[in-house]
Amino acid sequence: MAEVQTDRPPETSPDEVGLSDETVRAVEIALDGGRVDEVEDLVDELHPADMADLLESVTREDRALLLDIVGPTLDPEVLTYLDSALRDEVAEKLGPKETAAILKRLESDDALEFFEDLSEELRVQVLARVPVTIRRLLQEGLEYPEDSAGRLMQREVVVVPAIWTVGETIDYMRQHKKQMPQDFYDLYVVDPRYKPIGKLPLSRVLRNKRPVKIVDIMQQELNPVPVGLDQEEVAYLFKQYSLLSAPVVDPAGRLVGVITVDDVVHVVEEEAEDDLLKMGGVSETDLYSAVLQTTRSRFTWLVVNLGTAVLASSVIGLFESTISKVVALAVLMPIVASMGGNAGTQTVTVAVRALALKELTGKAAWRFVWREVMVGVANGLLFAVLVGLVAWAWFDQPLIGVVIAAAMVINLLSAGLFGTIIPLALEKLGADPAVASTVFLTTVTDVVGFFAFLGLAALILF
Amino acid sequence: MAEVQTDRPPETSPDEVGLSDETVRAVEIALDGGRVDEVEDLVDELHPADMADLLESVTREDRALLLDIVGPTLDPEVLTYLDSALRDEVAEKLGPKETAAILKRLESDDALEFFEDLSEELRVQVLARVPVTIRRLLQEGLEYPEDSAGRLMQREVVVVPAIWTVGETIDYMRQHKKQMPQDFYDLYVVDPRYKPIGKLPLSRVLRNKRPVKIVDIMQQELNPVPVGLDQEEVAYLFKQYSLLSAPVVDPAGRLVGVITVDDVVHVVEEEAEDDLLKMGGVSETDLYSAVLQTTRSRFTWLVVNLGTAVLASSVIGLFESTISKVVALAVLMPIVASMGGNAGTQTVTVAVRALALKELTGKAAWRFVWREVMVGVANGLLFAVLVGLVAWAWFDQPLIGVVIAAAMVINLLSAGLFGTIIPLALEKLGADPAVASTVFLTTVTDVVGFFAFLGLAALILF
Repeated sequence: MAEVQTDRPPETSPDEVGLSDETVRAVEIALDGGRVDEVEDLVDELHPADMADLLESVTREDRALLLDIVGPTLDPEVLTYLDSALRDEVAEKLGPKETAAILKRLESDDALEFFEDLSEELRVQVLARVPVTIRRLLQEGLEYPEDSAGRLMQREVVVVPAIWTVGETIDYMRQHKKQMPQDFYDLYVVDPRYKPIGKLPLSRVLRNKRPVKIVDIMQQELNPVPVGLDQEEVAYLFKQYSLLSAPVVDPAGRLVGVITVDDVVHVVEEEAEDDLLKMGGVSETDLYSAVLQTTRSRFTWLVVNLGTAVLASSVIGLFESTISKVVALAVLMPIVASMGGNAGTQTVTVAVRALALKELTGKAAWRFVWREVMVGVANGLLFAVLVGLVAWAWFDQPLIGVVIAAAMVINLLSAGLFGTIIPLALEKLGADPAVASTVFLTTVTDVVGFFAFLGLAALILF
Repeated sequence: MAEVQTDRPPETSPDEVGLSDETVRAVEIALDGGRVDEVEDLVDELHPADMADLLESVTREDRALLLDIVGPTLDPEVLTYLDSALRDEVAEKLGPKETAAILKRLESDDALEFFEDLSEELRVQVLARVPVTIRRLLQEGLEYPEDSAGRLMQREVVVVPAIWTVGETIDYMRQHKKQMPQDFYDLYVVDPRYKPIGKLPLSRVLRNKRPVKIVDIMQQELNPVPVGLDQEEVAYLFKQYSLLSAPVVDPAGRLVGVITVDDVVHVVEEEAEDDLLKMGGVSETDLYSAVLQTTRSRFTWLVVNLGTAVLASSVIGLFESTISKVVALAVLMPIVASMGGNAGTQTVTVAVRALALKELTGKAAWRFVWREVMVGVANGLLFAVLVGLVAWAWFDQPLIGVVIAAAMVINLLSAGLFGTIIPLALEKLGADPAVASTVFLTTVTDVVGFFAFLGLAALILF
């Protein structure tokens, strides 16, 4: 035990981590040349995570070639790191026998995570080839809802009764060495009905003398996770209370598994990523999807946007005669709409993030709406002056400057107002604010922007 | 040890977790009424994390009142959960003496994380009031670059020499119980020059008999983290290799601390969140900033967008005479630009995420560009038909339909092309693709969209 000593702080030297571009290229060239030995040498030392990245980086054809070469000696861990879109393809290529052999060697949560991505057909073939205990675990796992705690948890838990002592616990662990999980960090203490009543970080077992009772040193704050809880809520629980692990319980309160923080890291990332992708109008990372599939999935979003664009255009259509008299209006009108859209997107982005982190509770929501409206007005006034002067100078007509300035204030105010109200309302209605907020918002800022600008022009200029 | 049995899977019942709206409101009402006892009762049972959320949810005035009431008995943990924007305000309110007392009771990484957010003035006052060992730790910590591994790591590491046995290790831990960190999960094995040579999960100590040598059971895969490494790279390392903990080393390779996965969860989230905020044109979660500060920080981004909007407008300006002859063009032109912008944003979103996850290495980058161009062409053709027919029907002029159809294909193609090329180029140039990609992209899609649509109109319609 030591507080470690250091000299002066070193310069930052961010080493290149992970799979290098050079390795990928070298493997691709060796595969093209059919030099099997060279490929084997190149991938021999790769960490399973980097091997998975390599499989993801190459083309489908190269992936098949690569699996022909490394398949028989493939580290099972590689599959746990593989992007879920590619798991079925790889398992298909390896065949059910090889896949079953790999599943047998994975921990229960990793095995389930891999298994759930396989096709129905392959699942049946694989299940027929694994021992009955694993088959039962996989089948049970699949019965939990997708993205629930039940899918995330590890089934292997080391459990001790509360009446034991430290000495008894150590002896038990030494005797049952073979059945223990590879590495683990907490023991769970259960009552006779198998309800968890305490958690025991291993450091507490090691620090205390043999006669000390488990019940006296266990941690009683447990944060049990219901097995059906959505993984987003699980991640929130882990972040909120900085948990390292939590017991998973069935509706009767009995211990059925354990979730550790490392299982949650990917969920945390996925959730934050999800918001990003949804706001960008993409349903999921489709990096490994084919052109047709991608085209189709993006199409829906674009159709919705087309609808709103047509709506905005029809507002312009109302003012055709105005525009035909002063064409300058047609030149300037995208500026008003675009500024409103951008200011509103800023607000929506902050709102979506704050909602995901549950930061807009109680009065905080109203304070947020009020602040964004004020920010909208403030920036509206600043840009009114700026854009007004630009428009005046450009078309040499002071009244056009006045019109665009007034429209700017109106549109940035409504950007602040609707940029907060829309996501808050969607959340209240149980819809996902990340998906729909931007469409609704830009519809509002386009319609308000065009209407304010062209309407004011019709009133003031004639 | 058991594979736990379950009955049928339960229905999902996502309980409400975290601080409830009701609690926040009840506290606000009690504070308004000046009922101190009631406030104490309400917050008495709150978890430190929820207490921090409560402090974040109320107004500045209520926060001050609340701290007057709970300040003297405040759990130090609350400060580690507090949003960093509020830390200085809370510490200011608590005063340097109370703040120093709290810092003394935190673990080294939590203490540093809190201390780095204090004002220069408060830092000096607090440093004068903490013991010299803590003062040195804090001062040394601040010398590491912001957002580096040095700031993230915990200094308390339990270290053992390789020559020890399991028995010696257990005896040492029992004897030095008092100096050990609260709970920990790995021991580190160092050579005489203090270089880490192995990691020892506690489960391995417990599973083995007393005479077994440490060196024979330690884990040799270490993934040492240079102390100056940026936290983004640290998070990548943890995610890539599913690490639970990693030793931090100085440039001479000596052990200076340890980072555990729970420290990284927040970094992982921040990084993914960062991309979202940057793409939305917001510099950081500014939920707790004042109106003026927020207005200023958003202003910059809007100015940049104004520049691009003016550029797009000047393209329209080139075609004033065309528009004055066919006003329908003014009505339809936002549709072309908006569809291009949205399609391009979809592509950019996928690109930014893939770059952050280092998935666009080697040939994968070019395959991605090619695929996006193909998707652009495919959706371009689909929408060409759709929009062409709409425009024809609307204005009863088939040629306008032809013009907008052609412009749609051109613009969605360029959205795919530039939506990939721009972020890839920014990344190559060392710029952050999340910040600038969208501006560049929408400039391109606006300019190309207006130019293609109005230019084709000028050619075809007259």
